Amino acid sequence: MGTPDAVVRRRYPRGQEEFARVLAFSDGVYAIAITLLVLSIDLPELSSAGDAGEMLDALNDKHPQIISYAISFAVIGRYWVAHHQFFSRLSALDGGMIALNLVSLAVIAFLPFPTDVLGNYFENPVSVALYAITVATISWLEVMMFNRAHKRDLLDPRLPESVFRWSRAGAMAPVIFFLVSVPVAFLSPGLAAACWLGGLPYQFFYLNRRKPADADELLN
Amino acid sequence: MGTPDAVVRRRYPRGQEEFARVLAFSDGVYAIAITLLVLSIDLPELSSAGDAGEMLDALNDKHPQIISYAISFAVIGRYWVAHHQFFSRLSALDGGMIALNLVSLAVIAFLPFPTDVLGNYFENPVSVALYAITVATISWLEVMMFNRAHKRDLLDPRLPESVFRWSRAGAMAPVIFFLVSVPVAFLSPGLAAACWLGGLPYQFFYLNRRKPADADELLN
Amino acid sequence: MGTPDAVVRRRYPRGQEEFARVLAFSDGVYAIAITLLVLSIDLPELSSAGDAGEMLDALNDKHPQIISYAISFAVIGRYWVAHHQFFSRLSALDGGMIALNLVSLAVIAFLPFPTDVLGNYFENPVSVALYAITVATISWLEVMMFNRAHKRDLLDPRLPESVFRWSRAGAMAPVIFFLVSVPVAFLSPGLAAACWLGGLPYQFFYLNRRKPADADELLN
Amino acid sequence: MGTPDAVVRRRYPRGQEEFARVLAFSDGVYAIAITLLVLSIDLPELSSAGDAGEMLDALNDKHPQIISYAISFAVIGRYWVAHHQFFSRLSALDGGMIALNLVSLAVIAFLPFPTDVLGNYFENPVSVALYAITVATISWLEVMMFNRAHKRDLLDPRLPESVFRWSRAGAMAPVIFFLVSVPVAFLSPGLAAACWLGGLPYQFFYLNRRKPADADELLN
Repeated sequence: MGTPDAVVRRRYPRGQEEFARVLAFSDGVYAIAITLLVLSIDLPELSSAGDAGEMLDALNDKHPQIISYAISFAVIGRYWVAHHQFFSRLSALDGGMIALNLVSLAVIAFLPFPTDVLGNYFENPVSVALYAITVATISWLEVMMFNRAHKRDLLDPRLPESVFRWSRAGAMAPVIFFLVSVPVAFLSPGLAAACWLGGLPYQFFYLNRRKPADADELLN
Repeated sequence: MGTPDAVVRRRYPRGQEEFARVLAFSDGVYAIAITLLVLSIDLPELSSAGDAGEMLDALNDKHPQIISYAISFAVIGRYWVAHHQFFSRLSALDGGMIALNLVSLAVIAFLPFPTDVLGNYFENPVSVALYAITVATISWLEVMMFNRAHKRDLLDPRLPESVFRWSRAGAMAPVIFFLVSVPVAFLSPGLAAACWLGGLPYQFFYLNRRKPADADELLN
Repeated sequence: MGTPDAVVRRRYPRGQEEFARVLAFSDGVYAIAITLLVLSIDLPELSSAGDAGEMLDALNDKHPQIISYAISFAVIGRYWVAHHQFFSRLSALDGGMIALNLVSLAVIAFLPFPTDVLGNYFENPVSVALYAITVATISWLEVMMFNRAHKRDLLDPRLPESVFRWSRAGAMAPVIFFLVSVPVAFLSPGLAAACWLGGLPYQFFYLNRRKPADADELLN
Repeated sequence: MGTPDAVVRRRYPRGQEEFARVLAFSDGVYAIAITLLVLSIDLPELSSAGDAGEMLDALNDKHPQIISYAISFAVIGRYWVAHHQFFSRLSALDGGMIALNLVSLAVIAFLPFPTDVLGNYFENPVSVALYAITVATISWLEVMMFNRAHKRDLLDPRLPESVFRWSRAGAMAPVIFFLVSVPVAFLSPGLAAACWLGGLPYQFFYLNRRKPADADELLN
């Protein structure tokens, strides 16, 4: 209880049950959301149950759903790995971080819906836009959590400002690339998907050239 | 085995596997229930698969389902945090507490159903009432568990009667606000939702002014 | 690898990761199966979305589904508690026990299907029979596991034959009561449900009078 | 961050939180996928709700779905046990192993779809082929992980080349038997299922006769 401010600032150090339960709950939500994705692949409907050719055609028609499944599995898997690495560098949680984490889990758990929309309406620019906005939101919440961890001194080791800023720029990259893909989707859904992959060369060429000298040691 | 009374009173102290498994099972049910909520958002059905305008309209029609998802995510998240804080203050469980906990998990796991009803029939007063009664039941079971923990001496540290009563009054508040919203829903569903938020000012203004002197130290 | 016999007999003592993972996996399946039950409650369909009277009628028509949900939640919850207590008395697992446990999890995970059938066809004797056979199978697998644990010396403390036999008779009771309910269901589904509750007086009156002197100490 | 190569090679030794979280996440995905299988068994639809004979016929028509459920439960259960035994012999994970593990979880989590297709179109050779290719992929990823563990020195104890090759041949067997079953399915779905069981005599007769002398000690 106590004042709202006290609730938000209360700290739960690593090693206590509270810290471990937040991790376990988050892992649970990631694992369930990633496994529920398969429900967005529909059973093919055949007019002749034993017809191999008709089944091949029907499965072929499901390829957008199977591609959407694979994309979303990769997306949730990637954010789970990132969540994982981020939490391994925290010395404590506070109430605000637990709240931000819950909001980010709400968006992760929401992802099966845009996946389902994308799998059924692959060519519709709004499907692509809805998907991109959802992923951008997850990345943006990741940046918010990183920011809070730095500001409230929850990181161990603490990061010098130069390393913090460089690292945050890397975390912001997917937010920008996914948001840029939204208007692009109305020109061409295929081009929008190319934007989604745009973060990789940015990260490995542009960002790596600007990496501060002590980043590797502090961030792994 | 043994007599029913012995089963209900048998104690499982913190630190034993039994205690940990009850926590892990509860966390599992909370994580699964919160992640299943997304299944109550239906795929939009379009007559023209690539039509962006039709998709925007269709997604717009889903806004009650998305709002219901967000409300229920917040509700389950909030009760998970409370469950969490409550269990962190227990020195032991007994058979009766495990039974009460199972009943409360049954109502948590039931919540996707009222969420689905609310998402599809947002304007129907009975949807709002069903939802409010379900949440009131969860809160009431929380009060029962707090009560049992105090009476059976399962809390560490023990609470003086004044702090116990003040804290129980705070836990009762959502029961009352959600039950009051049931008849209100038949006048106006919007007003009922306002009742749901009514607990916040009550808690922060009325209750905080009456807080016993030693509550902060004992309850965090 | 090795011979099939060696695989079945290989022991995994308590305290090792293998033992803990079997517990965690089992808890996961119980938690997911119990939380999936809610999916067998269908959304009411209304001709007039805002009509309170029609919604009340529609929800009333769902009462068999809600009762089935409650019964199955109680059944899975009860077997989870029993699984729990049984494993807390094991000093080790062996390959055969892990296999029996997997088979029992397969039947637990199957229970949402008979629950769905029962919720939709409450008055059909075959629904009641299917449900009863499923639960009897779970109880019978519980007896098999208890038997194996005693025979292969996996229990800690070991039980004298008199206590083992008395305890096994108690575990067999639900198998018998649920199987007896199968033919009864064809006379009257309501009477079959009465059979399901018949185990309780049997356990508390008949069995408790025959309890060996040292049972309480050894079995808790 | 760092170069892609550094990410792939970074090691996470056993005993650290990272290692434990990968295990817990994997167990979660296995447990959820195995429990979701039940959703592929459809509710029977009766024209007369109370008719016992019609219900028996309807349940009988569901037997391919129930057999598919049982096969997939056994398949996921078997790969969970294997995952389990494999990880218990690792002294560390590296980035590449975590990625391979995620890909194998993606295929495990996909299995409810081929199960659903098989349960609804049991006689269609393409259903059988889709199922066989999915399981062969899981086994092949298992071989890849075993290979990487040996090459990157992640196994404890290290295996001599003779034992490694013999053990890998055993792990490859299901890949081959399931792939061979694909063309066979177009001749006869029943014969394809016989191929699936073909690995057992191969493993126990052919492979066991060739077992290196020190395999049992090193591999258990």
